[in-house]
Amino acid sequence: MTGLLTEAEGNPVAITNAGAKSDFLFLCEHASRRLPKRLGTLGLSEEALQSHIAWDPGALAVAELLAEKLDGVLIHQRFSRLAYDCNRPPESEAAMPVVSEVYDVPGNGAISAAERQARIDEIYLPFHEAVSTFVVGRKAAGRRPVLVTMHSFTPVYFGKPRTVELGILHDADSRLADRMLAIAAVEIAYDIRRNEPYGPADGVTHSLIEYGLRYGLPNVMIEIRNDLIHDEIGQRGMADYLEGLLAKSVAALSAQ
Amino acid sequence: MTGLLTEAEGNPVAITNAGAKSDFLFLCEHASRRLPKRLGTLGLSEEALQSHIAWDPGALAVAELLAEKLDGVLIHQRFSRLAYDCNRPPESEAAMPVVSEVYDVPGNGAISAAERQARIDEIYLPFHEAVSTFVVGRKAAGRRPVLVTMHSFTPVYFGKPRTVELGILHDADSRLADRMLAIAAVEIAYDIRRNEPYGPADGVTHSLIEYGLRYGLPNVMIEIRNDLIHDEIGQRGMADYLEGLLAKSVAALSAQ
Repeated sequence: MTGLLTEAEGNPVAITNAGAKSDFLFLCEHASRRLPKRLGTLGLSEEALQSHIAWDPGALAVAELLAEKLDGVLIHQRFSRLAYDCNRPPESEAAMPVVSEVYDVPGNGAISAAERQARIDEIYLPFHEAVSTFVVGRKAAGRRPVLVTMHSFTPVYFGKPRTVELGILHDADSRLADRMLAIAAVEIAYDIRRNEPYGPADGVTHSLIEYGLRYGLPNVMIEIRNDLIHDEIGQRGMADYLEGLLAKSVAALSAQ
Repeated sequence: MTGLLTEAEGNPVAITNAGAKSDFLFLCEHASRRLPKRLGTLGLSEEALQSHIAWDPGALAVAELLAEKLDGVLIHQRFSRLAYDCNRPPESEAAMPVVSEVYDVPGNGAISAAERQARIDEIYLPFHEAVSTFVVGRKAAGRRPVLVTMHSFTPVYFGKPRTVELGILHDADSRLADRMLAIAAVEIAYDIRRNEPYGPADGVTHSLIEYGLRYGLPNVMIEIRNDLIHDEIGQRGMADYLEGLLAKSVAALSAQ
């Protein structure tokens, strides 16, 4: 195992509000565009390193606001998904993408088995274990976390503008997503769609499967078009909306 | 969560030789045909409950001999795969099979979400956590376990006899399997084949993926035709053969 992270770079996983009183568990796998120093720039331009291929702009800020408003826990990955995409399993090609949208990622082009394993060991597995351990602990205490993974997507993809503003994504268990879509349909605040702009067939539901389906947690993945949350005003507005939507949806789920 | 196991039924996971000095980690997901009392007979005949659909006859006995001979750890599941098949992820239909070979399994036909989750929580997750925790602990201590999952298969399947005697199965990482097949080809002790009678497309490599590929461990799944290991003489003969094959193959892997 070659070492990837230096001690100065710290823990790849950050846990916010660990003693949260509510059952909300927010995950943000693509929170940061920071690369481990040893990976340099991965051969990418500064433009690419700032873009949505490196992270989900705004997602962490909205997740932090939600964790605070709803007194939930937030677990996020401190390194870029270009180093390791924590919403993909190690056996997936997309875990260390060689191409992302219109960008080649030269530094992911010819990774040795040892380098690949170091990224898994030092970025994915600590995140995986932090989430699993939290869920197991809460379940042992008779609680049932509500899993909400927070993402953002680019308004223009392969040159095409996207009109969807908010995606409510699910895998086999759609119970929470169904409630959210039903409530959202009445309020009509945004262009909200089920499993858009991505869905299970795109391989984006790894965290929902790994932590939601396996542990029997209500679960949903939220995709926000990133132009809506590029500044603090947008982030606060979106967090206010999602706070109400999530609280009502979970209440509807529990009432059933 | 409805409770499934009673206290008297004990821990679903058994760990043998936990302080083993070698790096061998043997898993036996289908070690037992014991059903949790609350599941009754699942509507099956005594014949079906004794058959290969309930367990892998002989696999645990061979695994125990190997763990002793090679000073490895053995982790096995104490309940039948008809209650929960620990070599399948919770989202798989095959985790609680409604049909297994020629047998319907009536008790798995209409399981409520709560019952399904109780089986996942009380049978699969403790096994999953025992294996993960062991691997994480060994890796933290600078060791790298060698994962060997031990299975047996029926000599007659859907009425057809099988001539293959020993299957050496792998998923994306074939390094250990390649060494075993190369060495076995010289010795010609059994009819040994790669990814037979099952392979990755049959969904049988869950444990290899979950514990082998993810943690970067050399890994292999061994399938033994169960008529070869139905008594102690057969089990000892097979364990003697596999002891040599595994030891030589791991040595060849390390020497590379």
